[in-house]
Amino acid sequence: MAADETPDDQYRTGILELIGILAYGEVSACERLAEDAAMSPDLETKAEILAMMAAEWDHFEKLRDRLVEMKQADPYPFIDSFADIFDRFHRQTTPSDWLEGLVKAYVGDGLAADFYREIAAYLDPETRELVLETLSGTGHSEFVVDAVCGAIERDPRVGGRLALWGRRLMGEALSQAQMVVAERDALSAVLVGGMDYPGMDLAGIGRMFTRLTEAHAARMDRLGLSA
Amino acid sequence: MAADETPDDQYRTGILELIGILAYGEVSACERLAEDAAMSPDLETKAEILAMMAAEWDHFEKLRDRLVEMKQADPYPFIDSFADIFDRFHRQTTPSDWLEGLVKAYVGDGLAADFYREIAAYLDPETRELVLETLSGTGHSEFVVDAVCGAIERDPRVGGRLALWGRRLMGEALSQAQMVVAERDALSAVLVGGMDYPGMDLAGIGRMFTRLTEAHAARMDRLGLSA
Repeated sequence: MAADETPDDQYRTGILELIGILAYGEVSACERLAEDAAMSPDLETKAEILAMMAAEWDHFEKLRDRLVEMKQADPYPFIDSFADIFDRFHRQTTPSDWLEGLVKAYVGDGLAADFYREIAAYLDPETRELVLETLSGTGHSEFVVDAVCGAIERDPRVGGRLALWGRRLMGEALSQAQMVVAERDALSAVLVGGMDYPGMDLAGIGRMFTRLTEAHAARMDRLGLSA
Repeated sequence: MAADETPDDQYRTGILELIGILAYGEVSACERLAEDAAMSPDLETKAEILAMMAAEWDHFEKLRDRLVEMKQADPYPFIDSFADIFDRFHRQTTPSDWLEGLVKAYVGDGLAADFYREIAAYLDPETRELVLETLSGTGHSEFVVDAVCGAIERDPRVGGRLALWGRRLMGEALSQAQMVVAERDALSAVLVGGMDYPGMDLAGIGRMFTRLTEAHAARMDRLGLSA
């Protein structure tokens, strides 16, 4: 914290960073879904993916508008400053085929949604409402369950490969999350709390990671994959 | 017209075909915009393009839902049967760079909107309302004007190349439209009219093409390009 920065200033910076990350995450999700849509085997699947994309886009606009409201005259350079986080993640987890892309969308969306729901508890009511709103409409990706289970039924070996893939996705997500915490002090402070606002202590953060890991395992199970 | 097909049956088939073409057109537009978004030079431009994409997707859902309402239990195979028209057009008009992609989006959307507005006059009120609704939100592409005019200002030679490109787009669009008319009797009948419902006579069709060509020229002019 800079010497002339009050706890309130720091909290506000942390919230701006959080919204910025969420916003870039939506852009990144749209781009990844666009690639998936181009690979889809039939028009109905393509339509499902484009519907997910339209929902993510709607969330992006809400987050961007909130940034403008809070201070950013031009929100784009600020949002763009979070590009690295997602680019690193995507570079490490480029799907080698259509099924890996589906598993990534499903596991990634689920993990992100869980994480944001955990964070939401520590936010001011207005930001909390915005964050929870951007988690709506993720039910779209249920069609992934049918596609992945069907593929494993046709060829059980696919299950082993995709299970490894799921573990790699989770590992990369955690390692990126740790880098964000290390790089963004104000954002970390929002999670950890301070004098005037509550947050998680270290034991609380540990329990949160346990819950995230359990939810990830449950999602893998739904796909017919061992976590 | 099949021997047991009443004029009403044929009109209904023509309307289904029209909605099917419009619907596939939206899917095709989404895919093209996804490619453009991936090529965008900055986040703000990417956001503009993704906003266009979300609008097109919303239109797709309306058209698809109308098909389901009218008869198609599973609308996807029907919509997919119009894929060839758009695939042919896109194969003939693959942009070689970012600016060509922008001009294609702008000229193509404008031409399509003009054409559907012309057709709308000859449709039953419910279909007309649906078609006009799917034309809303096309104002997004105004940012293309700034981008293209800026590029020509920086390098006037770009203007000559893009003017040729615009003419090629118009030529390909007209030639695809003629193929559709030749392939789809019922759809053509909706335009030309019949005993029980009005349509355009040949002179009317000629005048329509004149209006479309003039509007295309005006659009090219707005981009700083000669038509």
